[in-house]
Amino acid sequence: MANFGFSRLAVVAPYAPHWREARSAVGAPQLLQNAKESTTLAEAVEQCTLVAGTSTLTHRKPEQQVISLPSLAPLIRRQLIEGGRVAVVFGPEKHGLTREDLSYCHVLVEIPTDARQPSMNLGQAVAVCLYELATRVFSNTQTPSEEIPNQAENVPPAATSGNLDTLAKLIEQAMAASDYSPRAMQPANRHDLRLLLRRLHLNLADTRRALGLFRRILWRIEREQQQDGLPR
Amino acid sequence: MANFGFSRLAVVAPYAPHWREARSAVGAPQLLQNAKESTTLAEAVEQCTLVAGTSTLTHRKPEQQVISLPSLAPLIRRQLIEGGRVAVVFGPEKHGLTREDLSYCHVLVEIPTDARQPSMNLGQAVAVCLYELATRVFSNTQTPSEEIPNQAENVPPAATSGNLDTLAKLIEQAMAASDYSPRAMQPANRHDLRLLLRRLHLNLADTRRALGLFRRILWRIEREQQQDGLPR
Repeated sequence: MANFGFSRLAVVAPYAPHWREARSAVGAPQLLQNAKESTTLAEAVEQCTLVAGTSTLTHRKPEQQVISLPSLAPLIRRQLIEGGRVAVVFGPEKHGLTREDLSYCHVLVEIPTDARQPSMNLGQAVAVCLYELATRVFSNTQTPSEEIPNQAENVPPAATSGNLDTLAKLIEQAMAASDYSPRAMQPANRHDLRLLLRRLHLNLADTRRALGLFRRILWRIEREQQQDGLPR
Repeated sequence: MANFGFSRLAVVAPYAPHWREARSAVGAPQLLQNAKESTTLAEAVEQCTLVAGTSTLTHRKPEQQVISLPSLAPLIRRQLIEGGRVAVVFGPEKHGLTREDLSYCHVLVEIPTDARQPSMNLGQAVAVCLYELATRVFSNTQTPSEEIPNQAENVPPAATSGNLDTLAKLIEQAMAASDYSPRAMQPANRHDLRLLLRRLHLNLADTRRALGLFRRILWRIEREQQQDGLPR
C-alpha cells in the first residue's frame, strides 16, 4: 500500500494477538497505526459508494458483475469524479472472501491470471491491484491521497453502503410485517436483497425516496394490525 | 510467474544449498525444475535482443535510458514482432542489481512507486511487472507462451546480447593492441563499451560489419608490430 501511495487501511475482525503485535512493533508503519478496525465488513465499507471485491472465482459462481482488473480504473475514476468513496476488499490468504462478504460488493474484480495457476499470494494480489489503480486511476498525480477531484456538477451523490444497509433493514421489516416469506427464508432473502440493492446503483435521493416509501408501508401495516387486533 | 503464464526462468549464480532445496522439493513447480542456471548474467541473457533491468534507482545515477513500467509493454511488443527475445532482470532482494549487472541492460525499468516508500519486496515487484506485461503486451492471448507473433517482414534481425559481447571483446583487444589506454583504465572502458553497444541498438548485420572491421584492424596492428619487431 505504501509503495503505491495508498494510506487508508481498514481491517475487519483481525486475529487479535497478531494484529496487536503487528501494530505495536517498533517501526510499524504509519499505515498500520492509522488502520481502522471493525468487526464486520458492513461497518468497514459503510461510507463507500463503490465496493470492489477481489476473488479468484474458481470455486463459486459469481452473484454480481465480474470485471477484469484492467477495467476497474475507469469505474473508480468515475466514482471519484462524482464525489464517491471506493473500497477494494481482499479476503484472508487461505480462503478469500466469503459469499456473505461478497454480497457487500458492487462488483467483483478478477486479476487476469493463467488458468493453470489462477490463485495468487495475497501480498502479490494487493500489489498488482494497487499498481494498476495508482497507474491508471491517478495518472497525473503522484499519490492517490493527493488526488481529490472536484465533484462533478449535476451528478447526484451516490448512496453509501451504509445507506443501502439502512434501506435493506427497513425492507426486511416490511417483508416480515407483511408476512412476505416464512422465517426460514429470511437469511436467503437478506442476502439476495443486499445483492439487488447494490446492482441498482441507487443514488442518495433514490435511497431516501425508497426509505420514505417503506417507512410508510411499515406504518400502515402495523397500524392495520393494531386495529384488527391480530396477534403478530 | 506461473500466475501470469510466464515459463522461462533463468537464475544467475544462485546460492547452491537453497537452490538445490527449492528445486528438489516435493511439488516444486515445473517452472523451477525447468529453470536455466548460469554463473553470469552475460550467459543468461546471451540470446536476448532486449534486456530490461529493474531497479529502484534511489542510490545510483542511471547510466542508460530509464523508462516507467507502463511504457515497457510497447517496447517489448515491438521486439517480439521483430522476432527478438526479451529478458526482464531482477536483482536479489537485499541489494538489487549491481552496476555491472545493469551494464548488460538496454533499458532500466522503474515501477512508479511513491517517493516516500520506493523500495518494493522482490516477489511483489515481479508480480507487478509480469501482470503489466501479461495484460499489456499479450492483450489478445491468454498466456505469453502462446503468443508467437509472425516475424515482421523487412526488419533486420537484432543483435543478441551474446553478439554484442563478442564484438566488445574484439574491440577491447583492438584497444589493447593499439595502446589506446593504460591497463588501469581497462575495467572502466569495458563497462562504458558495454553500455555504448547496447545504446546503439545494433542489428545483426551492423554487428557483423563491425566485427569484420575490428578483426581487420587487429590483424593489421599485430602484423605491423611483428614486422617492427617491437616488444608487446
